[in-house]
Amino acid sequence: MPKIEPKILKGFRDFLPERQIVRQKMIETIKASFETFGFEPLETPALEYAEILTGKYGDEGDKLMYRFRDNGDRDVALRYDLTIPLARVVAQYENDLKKPFKRYQISPVWRAENTQKGRFREFYQCDADIVGSNSSLSDAEVLALSANTLCKLGLKTEDFVIRVNSREIISAFYDSLELSAEQKQIAVRMVDKIDKIGRQGVEDELNKSGFLAPDIKAVLNFAGTKIDDVKKIETTKKSFPAIKDALNRLSVIVTKALILTPKAKFVMDFSIARGLDYYTGMIFEVSLVKAPQFGSVVGGGRYDNLVGMFTNKSVPAVGASIGLDRLISALSELGLVKEEKTVTKALLVNFDESLTDDYLKIATELRSAGVNTMLYFETADLKKQLGYASDKGIKYAVLYGPNEAKEGLVVIKNLEKGIQEKVKTKEILKYFQK
Amino acid sequence: MPKIEPKILKGFRDFLPERQIVRQKMIETIKASFETFGFEPLETPALEYAEILTGKYGDEGDKLMYRFRDNGDRDVALRYDLTIPLARVVAQYENDLKKPFKRYQISPVWRAENTQKGRFREFYQCDADIVGSNSSLSDAEVLALSANTLCKLGLKTEDFVIRVNSREIISAFYDSLELSAEQKQIAVRMVDKIDKIGRQGVEDELNKSGFLAPDIKAVLNFAGTKIDDVKKIETTKKSFPAIKDALNRLSVIVTKALILTPKAKFVMDFSIARGLDYYTGMIFEVSLVKAPQFGSVVGGGRYDNLVGMFTNKSVPAVGASIGLDRLISALSELGLVKEEKTVTKALLVNFDESLTDDYLKIATELRSAGVNTMLYFETADLKKQLGYASDKGIKYAVLYGPNEAKEGLVVIKNLEKGIQEKVKTKEILKYFQK
Repeated sequence: MPKIEPKILKGFRDFLPERQIVRQKMIETIKASFETFGFEPLETPALEYAEILTGKYGDEGDKLMYRFRDNGDRDVALRYDLTIPLARVVAQYENDLKKPFKRYQISPVWRAENTQKGRFREFYQCDADIVGSNSSLSDAEVLALSANTLCKLGLKTEDFVIRVNSREIISAFYDSLELSAEQKQIAVRMVDKIDKIGRQGVEDELNKSGFLAPDIKAVLNFAGTKIDDVKKIETTKKSFPAIKDALNRLSVIVTKALILTPKAKFVMDFSIARGLDYYTGMIFEVSLVKAPQFGSVVGGGRYDNLVGMFTNKSVPAVGASIGLDRLISALSELGLVKEEKTVTKALLVNFDESLTDDYLKIATELRSAGVNTMLYFETADLKKQLGYASDKGIKYAVLYGPNEAKEGLVVIKNLEKGIQEKVKTKEILKYFQK
Repeated sequence: MPKIEPKILKGFRDFLPERQIVRQKMIETIKASFETFGFEPLETPALEYAEILTGKYGDEGDKLMYRFRDNGDRDVALRYDLTIPLARVVAQYENDLKKPFKRYQISPVWRAENTQKGRFREFYQCDADIVGSNSSLSDAEVLALSANTLCKLGLKTEDFVIRVNSREIISAFYDSLELSAEQKQIAVRMVDKIDKIGRQGVEDELNKSGFLAPDIKAVLNFAGTKIDDVKKIETTKKSFPAIKDALNRLSVIVTKALILTPKAKFVMDFSIARGLDYYTGMIFEVSLVKAPQFGSVVGGGRYDNLVGMFTNKSVPAVGASIGLDRLISALSELGLVKEEKTVTKALLVNFDESLTDDYLKIATELRSAGVNTMLYFETADLKKQLGYASDKGIKYAVLYGPNEAKEGLVVIKNLEKGIQEKVKTKEILKYFQK
């Protein structure tokens, strides 16, 4: 039979144990952080009816969706994010879910991204959302949760900046300029790109789109506004009177979030727009001070109209999404990821076929005590077996040959330290418990 | 805008918190069991090139695959099981993976099954495989791992039966009958159905296919053979001399497995065939004594030629796969699933807006100490808030109003027991630690 080339799709990844161990630990940490804030786990399917997903993410989103006809000719698509499926769930089980409903989900999503930009087509999102409350406390909790989770992952509060803005502020400002609907959209889109194309770039684009000089000046002023202390908002209100109420509301959110995470660094930054169409209120992005090149590692905001696309009831919602892969890359770069090559603690060396039954018993004993143990299956020579353990990063080798059998003991070799110790068979567990 | 009906695809499921909490706990238990046996985590993508997956599962498998053309017109398919992707990984990273390579993966797979039979189209498999060893110890470990995992999930060894057979035994037996290749296939297929269609059904089908009477008798005798004690194999060897060597090898595997899990119930059952094409050696299925209607909850076997489909090197392998959903249903039926409605331990009741800052501080303190805490966002009346906590299954309510603020204490209400206790603010953590 002709061989099939063993290859993986572009933009997709295999996580071999060395990498997967690290990922699993991070996921566990994120999960625990979400749960301390009272979020409960939810899992939705990978596949949805296409009509559930399309038209919610903007044109770009629809284009990048994995959409196809299934065997029953249904128009289906792979999950593009975890937010729309949540909105579908909230609408579908309207009467079963007590509000506020706080749920988290940590799952892969699929987007046919351009892989040349280093993007992946399958990646994990870690989302926590609060559905059914429009209290500023729920916005504050989502911000605090983001900060808390990053701290649990090893960052200090000074290592990241949470940039917040709100769609209400953006709307109020542009409404005050008396632009056409189309011009407003252009302005929002350009300001969103200010980090990439710079102030001059934005100015050029607005010029091209026929903006008047005073409007361009106002847009650039607005987009350049950054408030790093809620006490300073009064000045900003004077510069942009139209956004007064919206800014007050945002500052309340930040003030509450600061009580939940006293040292976190919040900056109100009016250039933050968030790409997705569905946001309606507070929006935010978190970036790492020493690794800004990774962009935003957490983002989210308030989306009060999304559930309403599936049901007549209006249900407010706010949430955060952590980009797991980007965050791991960034933490790796910062040296905050502790490598762990294996979850196995001990290799039981196989010396002698006649001792097989004893090996099986020793393995069982170790395992019962929670010591992750691998038994070498073949009676290869000692050097090969110890080499295998070292290569895999297994810390201990348990040696047991005919002499040890006679004496009722084993030799435990600490492969990292290169030391070994004779231990009575009955006391192996004690050795590992200490 | 017209509303989109919030519906889920047939055969797919949402796991709301109550069910997802249980699932996550089971997955954690399975993961821990796999790791004590020295298996390491691996994750492969949901999507693969179709040519990687097709032609390995039999015609039925190819038909049930979710296969489509992606945006780049690539012929792709959703993962149908976790074994073929493992074989691809082993071939692709041939030089990076130390052998034996013991890996586990717990992930969803997709099959366009007939939902009328109560089957799901997205379900989780929990697989553990040993790649690169043909030692009987590796077969034994896979069997023992299956038994150990079921015990960790709350079953006793007498609650399940591990039925084992081997493809070698099956081949040796049918070779001895001098059947045509086609007849052999028919016989294997019919015997595999013996549980469903009965002995008479098998006899009728073989008659129809032109089998001679003595052959039918031999097939039925063979298929009806069950050996519940390895010591009894001598009689069987006399009845079926052709399978002598193959049976010896299988009995060695069972003997070793019995040392690893002394009380597990093994039955050599020659009717076990396993549907999938790729098995070459030992095969097994585990069913529950008191819930046989759920069929096999764990299954697996040896597949020595699978990696060879992707590379010229022959790499032996053996593994087990747990059907998570079926197992949960079965354990539920047996009353072995402990329901848990929430992961949240305490609801902090919101009495008074002027105390918001205190609530945020108390919530933060509780959370820092690892007490999963939910703060009620609105100042609704007490009854409503306590009702919310009860409905969600939250055990404790923390009450803090103007009086408590003055006295520097909180009232902690145990909603299950209906008792409450005044606790000094500084001693809340102590309360929850006990």
